[in-house]
Amino acid sequence: MFIRNCWYAAAWDIEVPDDSLFTRTLLNEPVLLYRDNRGAVVALENRCCHRSAPLHLGRKEGDCVRCMYHGLKFDPQGICVEIPGQAQIPPKTCVKTFPVVERHRLVWIWMGDPSLANPKDIVDYFWHDSPNWRMKPGYIHYQANYKLIIDNLLDFTHLAWVHPNTLGTESAAGLKPQIERDNNGAGTLTISRWYHNDDMPNLHKSVASFEGKVDRWQIYQWTPPAFLRMDAGSAPVGTGAPEGHRVPEAVQFRHTSIQTPETETTSHYWFCQARNFELDNEALTEQIYQNVVVAFEEDRAMIEAQQKIISQLPDRPMRPIGADAGLNQARWLIDRLIKAESDLDQAQALRVETDSPVWGHSGRFLSNKETK
Amino acid sequence: MFIRNCWYAAAWDIEVPDDSLFTRTLLNEPVLLYRDNRGAVVALENRCCHRSAPLHLGRKEGDCVRCMYHGLKFDPQGICVEIPGQAQIPPKTCVKTFPVVERHRLVWIWMGDPSLANPKDIVDYFWHDSPNWRMKPGYIHYQANYKLIIDNLLDFTHLAWVHPNTLGTESAAGLKPQIERDNNGAGTLTISRWYHNDDMPNLHKSVASFEGKVDRWQIYQWTPPAFLRMDAGSAPVGTGAPEGHRVPEAVQFRHTSIQTPETETTSHYWFCQARNFELDNEALTEQIYQNVVVAFEEDRAMIEAQQKIISQLPDRPMRPIGADAGLNQARWLIDRLIKAESDLDQAQALRVETDSPVWGHSGRFLSNKETK
Amino acid sequence: MFIRNCWYAAAWDIEVPDDSLFTRTLLNEPVLLYRDNRGAVVALENRCCHRSAPLHLGRKEGDCVRCMYHGLKFDPQGICVEIPGQAQIPPKTCVKTFPVVERHRLVWIWMGDPSLANPKDIVDYFWHDSPNWRMKPGYIHYQANYKLIIDNLLDFTHLAWVHPNTLGTESAAGLKPQIERDNNGAGTLTISRWYHNDDMPNLHKSVASFEGKVDRWQIYQWTPPAFLRMDAGSAPVGTGAPEGHRVPEAVQFRHTSIQTPETETTSHYWFCQARNFELDNEALTEQIYQNVVVAFEEDRAMIEAQQKIISQLPDRPMRPIGADAGLNQARWLIDRLIKAESDLDQAQALRVETDSPVWGHSGRFLSNKETK
Repeated sequence: MFIRNCWYAAAWDIEVPDDSLFTRTLLNEPVLLYRDNRGAVVALENRCCHRSAPLHLGRKEGDCVRCMYHGLKFDPQGICVEIPGQAQIPPKTCVKTFPVVERHRLVWIWMGDPSLANPKDIVDYFWHDSPNWRMKPGYIHYQANYKLIIDNLLDFTHLAWVHPNTLGTESAAGLKPQIERDNNGAGTLTISRWYHNDDMPNLHKSVASFEGKVDRWQIYQWTPPAFLRMDAGSAPVGTGAPEGHRVPEAVQFRHTSIQTPETETTSHYWFCQARNFELDNEALTEQIYQNVVVAFEEDRAMIEAQQKIISQLPDRPMRPIGADAGLNQARWLIDRLIKAESDLDQAQALRVETDSPVWGHSGRFLSNKETK
Repeated sequence: MFIRNCWYAAAWDIEVPDDSLFTRTLLNEPVLLYRDNRGAVVALENRCCHRSAPLHLGRKEGDCVRCMYHGLKFDPQGICVEIPGQAQIPPKTCVKTFPVVERHRLVWIWMGDPSLANPKDIVDYFWHDSPNWRMKPGYIHYQANYKLIIDNLLDFTHLAWVHPNTLGTESAAGLKPQIERDNNGAGTLTISRWYHNDDMPNLHKSVASFEGKVDRWQIYQWTPPAFLRMDAGSAPVGTGAPEGHRVPEAVQFRHTSIQTPETETTSHYWFCQARNFELDNEALTEQIYQNVVVAFEEDRAMIEAQQKIISQLPDRPMRPIGADAGLNQARWLIDRLIKAESDLDQAQALRVETDSPVWGHSGRFLSNKETK
Repeated sequence: MFIRNCWYAAAWDIEVPDDSLFTRTLLNEPVLLYRDNRGAVVALENRCCHRSAPLHLGRKEGDCVRCMYHGLKFDPQGICVEIPGQAQIPPKTCVKTFPVVERHRLVWIWMGDPSLANPKDIVDYFWHDSPNWRMKPGYIHYQANYKLIIDNLLDFTHLAWVHPNTLGTESAAGLKPQIERDNNGAGTLTISRWYHNDDMPNLHKSVASFEGKVDRWQIYQWTPPAFLRMDAGSAPVGTGAPEGHRVPEAVQFRHTSIQTPETETTSHYWFCQARNFELDNEALTEQIYQNVVVAFEEDRAMIEAQQKIISQLPDRPMRPIGADAGLNQARWLIDRLIKAESDLDQAQALRVETDSPVWGHSGRFLSNKETK
């Protein structure tokens, strides 16, 4: 069972081409993604309502997509606008659409009740397209349930064991993180480590424009169902970093890890590691990207093996340890949302009044590209 | 659920060798096919009744097949005629047999109640072995339910979209076909297009022995569960083609498309395209065959993709369009037969009196080969 | 459903390395095998009790294994002895263990109730490590239920058909075997053939140190769930072989065939063929091994094909023949044990008092290696 009433990532912007059709299964549903004439992304169920032919084998015609089995043509609202050789189009000849928004270089999709979709709820990943930051987008396909990936992201003890030669050596040492939970909205976990008046790590030294002692930090913020944001860096000591002030010379990274369930046992995973320095150093961009890929493949090997054991022995209890605090909080937030949706469905309750826009059949928003 | 009380195609004659054993799964059942000493085809369940060893790993011994696990030998009636080292053979030591008939270069099998099997009911494909016609037999394995293939064969709107460079250009244009349904017996659909006093198509011109205006036609006849026969051609105008008279110089084609379910989501497909001219032109035979293969592979790509979406979203409704008339009629005829079989099974009704022969254990008929 | 309260083979001794971790699925459960510092085999469920990570991706640390996901360390009794960064270890932080014994070059495991495990019940395969015998250990993985392999081993009629060029020619001829069933304990079948005052087979002649007439024998002893022992040879006539006395010059073979279910449709199979002559002739050891492999691959092809038909047609009855006596007895003994276990489980009966040792968490025995 998946949370449905939330914005999920569907693709990086560059995964959805300008001139052709792209398909991906999300929450067990086949989804078609393409761009209209203005470049805005359209999301339809990847199934012609006539005879279930997949639309991704069809043809993009302007803002529309034509099924290449019998020629039915659908507009971005999923409404059939042409049946070859037939004057009248029956009213139910519609393909299901999904609210979709392009923001911060990601395509966001709403798989639940369209009337609840509000783009204000999209998690902010401004560093993806800010001129002050630079990153290379990454994607991994996982043979594992998305919650096993979240467990991994919110756990720090595994760094020393799974990543002894990559992420582990530095992060494994040091003080315990602080965990805070904010239950407002979908809820948010904040897991932070601050090192005051400390030596600068070598990684930071090699790129810093200053010398001397630093205040440095690692702050993870996680929002259900599967959105991790990480803020890490070093600032000259006494320049106010702990109080929220970041001087321009501070060495800063932002990390993105986002999952969307494909099926119960497979997942999509988008990631990147952004920085605020040497923006035009393409070799550095690539090097940072490759470092992340190496570490993430270490995780994938373990998590996919874990999924196999869970599938083989699904009923065995999991014995908790102290380091589970983060992942337990995340699972609690996920379960809370699933229960809330279940209650909503069962009671057919009145929709919460929000400032959500009125979604049409496509529920599509203008993207940045469109408004420029 | 499949129709069982009907003749299905099991193989082209050349698929069943003279000296060895051939197996194929039909309607979820493994079937063994081989030829007796006179060349007549025998059909047994591909399972030794002793311990379920497959008989196709056995040995053909004259008219019989010997299981090569423990040496039990079965005659063409499925009766065990030898248990090595044992004098008495218990009476139930029999392998299930199926009525089978070789006709028009196809091996036909009856998977239902043998007492209802009457070779008179086999659909007539005389052009497969008539001296006046020439064809090359074709076979395709499909990862899709057989009814999706039937949908495709009885629909003409897809020609323009799936086959724009092969079948589509010519057939897509032109007048609407007439559809007639005959509910007698298994039922028959006839879908016909006549073009009176028309120009000859280029394809026909290149082989015709005459010039000038023609009456030309495309007549599809479909019989459940999965038998398509197509009659197409051009005759000099005014020579009586519309009234049923075909002058010798008429350019004529006959097409065969036959499916048999292998499982719920896989199918066997036999096809050919016969002609009544240039019979000894082997290059033309091959060229016509290849043209059909190219077009049929276009269909297969779409239909197998369609099956995947149906398997992923099995409960979505299919929205009708006007062009579904043909396939709706076919599905109606199939459903009628399935219901009739279900009623028959439930009531344990008396069998309909027919002029059917008495089937023995094998229910095997003499083939043309035998009677020559 | 599998018999659980019995000793199963888990591996040849050489399959479990000294310095690393080995995993194998037995009775649907993933098992980790490794050796402690003294070389004794430890068997744990291949699943960290924390988050289901497989332990075979972990690290052997002395007598212990460390899960390489979050660093939990388990001792040979399955007890967690370290949680990194955590002082207290909750009492249920344990991995399931299995009683395990290394004997006669095999690793034996008890998958059922540990309190019932008594190493005295392990079937005796002394020729695996006796200085008077020589063999090369073999292993086959089977895509078939283990009972189909037992059927094969206890049946002699298949030799002529499956092995016409290997085992079949000699054994197929000759007198009927005697079958005896002993219902004590797990039960035992003894199937024996004695040829008194007979010619020596060529195979024996080529290695015998004597000439003339012999008493020769083939004695199969089978114990459920899946232990075959074979004793075959030739002794000079009149030297007491039929009465149980084997003179030193007797040419003797001992054969081992052991199965353990992996899943309902896959199995592990360990085998060897030992001899009491030319012990240091390595070429002969290899040749005997290869002869067995060739014959066993003939069986595997048939049995895996048989499994496919059974999976396709699971409800068809099996028609008995006279030669089924042996396998019917074996199935009866297996069913009796399964029923006994089911009765035991249902009644939650008091455990039978035996001279079984008290098993700790690991229930591990000292192996020969340890006691030397």
